[in-house]
Amino acid sequence: MSKITIKEIADLAGVSVATVSRVLNGNGRYSDETKQRVLGIADKFNYRTNAVAKSLRTNQSKTIGVIVPDITNEFFANIVLAIEHVLVPHGYSIFICNTSEDHEKEKRFVRDLESKGVDGLIYVSGNMNIPDESTVKKLPIVCINRRDPQNQEFVVVESDNYNGGFVATEELIAQGCKHIVIIKDERDIVPMNERYRGYREALKTHGLLSDLNLVIEIPVDVHQAEKAVHQLIGHGVKFDGIFACTDWLAIGALKALRQNHIQVPHEVQVIGFDNISVGEHSYPTLTTVHQDKIKLGEMASEILLDRIEHRNTLTHKKIVVPVSLIRRNSTFQQ
Amino acid sequence: MSKITIKEIADLAGVSVATVSRVLNGNGRYSDETKQRVLGIADKFNYRTNAVAKSLRTNQSKTIGVIVPDITNEFFANIVLAIEHVLVPHGYSIFICNTSEDHEKEKRFVRDLESKGVDGLIYVSGNMNIPDESTVKKLPIVCINRRDPQNQEFVVVESDNYNGGFVATEELIAQGCKHIVIIKDERDIVPMNERYRGYREALKTHGLLSDLNLVIEIPVDVHQAEKAVHQLIGHGVKFDGIFACTDWLAIGALKALRQNHIQVPHEVQVIGFDNISVGEHSYPTLTTVHQDKIKLGEMASEILLDRIEHRNTLTHKKIVVPVSLIRRNSTFQQ
Repeated sequence: MSKITIKEIADLAGVSVATVSRVLNGNGRYSDETKQRVLGIADKFNYRTNAVAKSLRTNQSKTIGVIVPDITNEFFANIVLAIEHVLVPHGYSIFICNTSEDHEKEKRFVRDLESKGVDGLIYVSGNMNIPDESTVKKLPIVCINRRDPQNQEFVVVESDNYNGGFVATEELIAQGCKHIVIIKDERDIVPMNERYRGYREALKTHGLLSDLNLVIEIPVDVHQAEKAVHQLIGHGVKFDGIFACTDWLAIGALKALRQNHIQVPHEVQVIGFDNISVGEHSYPTLTTVHQDKIKLGEMASEILLDRIEHRNTLTHKKIVVPVSLIRRNSTFQQ
Repeated sequence: MSKITIKEIADLAGVSVATVSRVLNGNGRYSDETKQRVLGIADKFNYRTNAVAKSLRTNQSKTIGVIVPDITNEFFANIVLAIEHVLVPHGYSIFICNTSEDHEKEKRFVRDLESKGVDGLIYVSGNMNIPDESTVKKLPIVCINRRDPQNQEFVVVESDNYNGGFVATEELIAQGCKHIVIIKDERDIVPMNERYRGYREALKTHGLLSDLNLVIEIPVDVHQAEKAVHQLIGHGVKFDGIFACTDWLAIGALKALRQNHIQVPHEVQVIGFDNISVGEHSYPTLTTVHQDKIKLGEMASEILLDRIEHRNTLTHKKIVVPVSLIRRNSTFQQ
């Protein structure tokens, strides 16, 4: 197999060595035509940068770790995809670590990622504090929908969870609901607490009483939600609206209502949160609060890049991404 | 920050240096109690292996690349999770690369992964030939539900796609269907072709004619399926069963049927393929062919490990994972 050098690629492409280097590292400042020519030649002669050796030289591995609780949830997968869309063109590869909300597993992952020399970390959701290890804290870290109450120094990109809870609840009230159940994550985590705060504030604004019998706190799982709504009905609790803090919780609620022959939206209206595709195809289709997964992933990635490359032009510590209400058939539409 | 050596950890834990090394590298042959003690001390004194330097020394990076077409499809995410479950305890981290079925993107990913020194690759699904680059071919590679017709040397782990197509179609016939539509991927790829072959064989076995008007070939996308079924109905094509080659295609079909007020299963019965959760929560719930995502991911990972570590105890070139029929409400049940 022929071995070609950067110098030879530059000669063949008729550009400088510096340009070839920029193209191969995805560092920008070259035309698309130059890029195609250089990559074509590199491909043809099977040129390979040795990233491992280079990583020792430059102290950059061009790798990023992304810590997610559950990659099989489309919500998280969409965020990961947006992160990839921003970082891959800059020459980064992404390690994806699925914690299943296991604290020990998360710590182990972070240790592995560190030892592999990642240039930065993105934490998506999850309920734990960021591992309290000094070396980790030297890495650029951005959190999406996750806040570490003990540590305010990380940049946080989050949906406007408070407002999401408010508009969902206000929509149910506007459509005539008086007894609105909230189904929320039992964990004490900021995004869920904020959605709950929005719910309470909307009730208050519209002169409805908060009733603790209508506050369901469970693990975020479709089957748990189904069970919880069965229990509510079994206990004879009166309700005409449900605000579920994730779409999967709403899907579980819809299933329990259907099994109990309760008509949606005529007897009970339901709103979810996230806007993942299962709610487009449920029956009835699900009204929900849209989280802008692409924006969340993109913003976090841009900030991380900025930190890694020591530009630090983005100085905000917290970025709030707006949410919006998607009206479908699980609520009335006037 | 204190710097601790492996020797000091061994002294504190009262075990040998070799044992500490095995624990830190996740190589097995130690008790759970030893593991906890060693990791506890390593944690406390903030011990870090430098994986980058080590990778140059050992020529192993303890990283694996996984190439998937669409991580937001729960089917692929579940396979990735199973791969992680096997490989992470062995000290590997996983690069996940989402190709969106873009051939150029895939080639770029593979080049990046190689330059980062991955120890092996797992290809999941996808329609392309494995990049024809000699260096890639020196890496251990395992394919899941993907076959490269030009290259038979890779190990393939796949679902019994032929049998899946056969049992799905036979079930529709057993439940009384005479005019069975198949909705399949328009691409000429082995798993889809095998499902189609199973469909044709089942029709033949039961004395039904294959009717090319009932063969719908489209991109694998829920909206395309919805549109295609609208068109079938619009053109007045007579049918009483649909075998959709993925669950998402089936979900699109269910939506079109509902919009046309065609009762499922009374007028048309529907079967999908994959068994992802959207079919548990659709209305009606979806009868489907279960693919064993965990087994597919685990088998591929075990084989890859075996190759990387040069044991080569697993010599099969092709491993077929059985499928099974999950009966729900989109078909009759006798």
